[in-house]
Amino acid sequence: MPVNLTAPDPKKLLAVAGVKLGIAAANIRKADRKDLLVIQLADGAQVAGVFTQNRFCAAPVVVTREHLDASAAIRALVVNTGNANAGTGSEGMKDARQTCADLARLLGCEAQQILPFSTGVIMEPLPVERIAAGLPACIADLKADNWFNAATAIMTTDTLPKAASLKRSVGKTEITLTGIAKGAGMIHPNMATMLGFVATDARVSAPLVKAAVAYAAERSFNCITVDGDTSTNDSFMLIASGAARMTEITDAGSAEFAAFREAVTEVATHLAQAIIRDGEGATKFISVRIDSGRNEEECRRIGFAIAHSPLVKTAFFASDPNLGRILAAIGYAGVGDLDVAKIDLYLDDVLIARNGGRNPAYQEADGQRVMKQSEITVRVVLNRGTATATLWTCDLSHDYVSINADYRS
Amino acid sequence: MPVNLTAPDPKKLLAVAGVKLGIAAANIRKADRKDLLVIQLADGAQVAGVFTQNRFCAAPVVVTREHLDASAAIRALVVNTGNANAGTGSEGMKDARQTCADLARLLGCEAQQILPFSTGVIMEPLPVERIAAGLPACIADLKADNWFNAATAIMTTDTLPKAASLKRSVGKTEITLTGIAKGAGMIHPNMATMLGFVATDARVSAPLVKAAVAYAAERSFNCITVDGDTSTNDSFMLIASGAARMTEITDAGSAEFAAFREAVTEVATHLAQAIIRDGEGATKFISVRIDSGRNEEECRRIGFAIAHSPLVKTAFFASDPNLGRILAAIGYAGVGDLDVAKIDLYLDDVLIARNGGRNPAYQEADGQRVMKQSEITVRVVLNRGTATATLWTCDLSHDYVSINADYRS
Repeated sequence: MPVNLTAPDPKKLLAVAGVKLGIAAANIRKADRKDLLVIQLADGAQVAGVFTQNRFCAAPVVVTREHLDASAAIRALVVNTGNANAGTGSEGMKDARQTCADLARLLGCEAQQILPFSTGVIMEPLPVERIAAGLPACIADLKADNWFNAATAIMTTDTLPKAASLKRSVGKTEITLTGIAKGAGMIHPNMATMLGFVATDARVSAPLVKAAVAYAAERSFNCITVDGDTSTNDSFMLIASGAARMTEITDAGSAEFAAFREAVTEVATHLAQAIIRDGEGATKFISVRIDSGRNEEECRRIGFAIAHSPLVKTAFFASDPNLGRILAAIGYAGVGDLDVAKIDLYLDDVLIARNGGRNPAYQEADGQRVMKQSEITVRVVLNRGTATATLWTCDLSHDYVSINADYRS
Repeated sequence: MPVNLTAPDPKKLLAVAGVKLGIAAANIRKADRKDLLVIQLADGAQVAGVFTQNRFCAAPVVVTREHLDASAAIRALVVNTGNANAGTGSEGMKDARQTCADLARLLGCEAQQILPFSTGVIMEPLPVERIAAGLPACIADLKADNWFNAATAIMTTDTLPKAASLKRSVGKTEITLTGIAKGAGMIHPNMATMLGFVATDARVSAPLVKAAVAYAAERSFNCITVDGDTSTNDSFMLIASGAARMTEITDAGSAEFAAFREAVTEVATHLAQAIIRDGEGATKFISVRIDSGRNEEECRRIGFAIAHSPLVKTAFFASDPNLGRILAAIGYAGVGDLDVAKIDLYLDDVLIARNGGRNPAYQEADGQRVMKQSEITVRVVLNRGTATATLWTCDLSHDYVSINADYRS
């Protein structure tokens, strides 16, 4: 049951000039399920991405990075669900390249101009023949107005498709951004079993597309966690088709670039939060905000200690203000010189702990009231500096165990 | 349902000369439950301990460290369950000192000669009057032959008491060791919601008691994890009463000291593994062994990444050989220069992955056979050095969520 999340309205997902999408049911893991997506880009599109930090990074991630580094003009992305092509060794690399070659032949371009993405079960061979057989149907389906179906085709354990669109003024031009994402578990910063694709018609130079995707990831997908597991396949891609009538943005210090990267961050944040709202078994959406830290890194470290703690997460599931568990998580976050006697802890507006101990005025009924909500903010005030960080997570429920115990069956 | 663990046979728990134990029901949290333990030591006993690394360390931990540092001859330990006296600020410190003063008065010694321990709910005031009222009953109950009852009195979410005894030859003397422990969740190295007390009649100098407790903790309690949460109260104490007829062990390089610390490690390992076998909701006992690493630290890091992963742990619960999740955990363990193409992965004797990819000869039925066992060894061979580490953990089940969602109700 996702937390305050509904499927996007297909009519509100805006076409992005210069970008077409086509999907097909390729029987990769399950029959009669849309599981293959091709995103075709107009000439001149710029693409950049950020990727999993997992050392066991999947074959398609390796190939995508290679193809981006080769600076070929990217013509298409291909995404399959049902199989992650990870932990598949040299065969997996061959399979990822094969998929690129198959699509390149159909589109009349080089294999290096294709970026492959996979998500699903790890350590099983990618069924390349079925993917090849499905590609012509994707191409036949290519259209600009296909974002909702694309969002649906990339789902795995997601219960709802995730997508968002917006228009923003950048200088005198109104640009369009539409993004889709998938991911519900194995979600952790740097990054998640998470695929995200945001496209815009803005004209932006290659280095600034790169800068914008890193900036947005740091403030969105790298601020979420479901279970602390970092996947082998995570990728967040930003496509700037350049189809909008505007002067190319080339100056990192310009107001136009600032507006552009904020717009990308806005879409990415919406998608990242949607992943948490649809977190495996989630019944609550929890914001964790750490204030007055010495630096952002320690704020994030403490925030993630709270957000990863199974004890904290089960207490949220139970609506039990067993809040000492939050103090315990702060204490073991690994900030060596932390003075716990300075720490205040809030649950929404309720001051739970003051100067590291229980607030004498705190009534359990107040904590209980907040814990029953479906959206809760945990706020920790460290009182030792001016840095801050906000993360998002969900609770740990019976359904998380059921979903992950039964995923393959 | 603990995994291959039964309650210790009270008759097999050996009295340790120089150590007496007394228990009482003090109504600390629940009525008519034994929840207070006093361990009284003979003159000349040496005591040393290792403690939680949590910055929010509980008041009794602070006081115990202070009293040990003051080097007073320790005369007794006092342990309560039901309340952790953690996150309780300066009131909590006062309460811990008060408990020491109350017991000291009854025993005719100084408050500094008492070590206090607490376990239970965090961030609630310690009911010092009830503890004070229960102490006389503990003293009336003091006897050497009381280890089973002591093990029972310190339980919280434990389903079974945990205790072990053994006799070992040290030089020409046969020494006796008996230990008890509690802990079932919030278990993590450095350390756990875990209290452990091992007593022996051996005569050992103060510095070597200190060395032995650190040595044993590193190889036992610091090798286990249930949920990755490090508690505020963890303490592992070693008591050497000196009542055995033997020359004091004073030489760290002697065969006697080596035999002594191995005996302590053996008892501590038994207790640590019992905690995992009784891990909250555990249905499987998992050993994680990392071989051929460059150093022990990276072996432990990779081992704990596997042992902490909710995705790996739910797969074990489901008996599902979804073993790519183990590869993913190895990949995100944070060993930056790890060459995943060299890694082999075994499940008991079954070679699952070779050179970082699926072993071509691996049959899922073989993985399935091992996954159904109640005891499983995951072995990762890094093929880059000679270091090794072994850790122990359990699976993540529905019952873990139930137990932790309902703990306070």
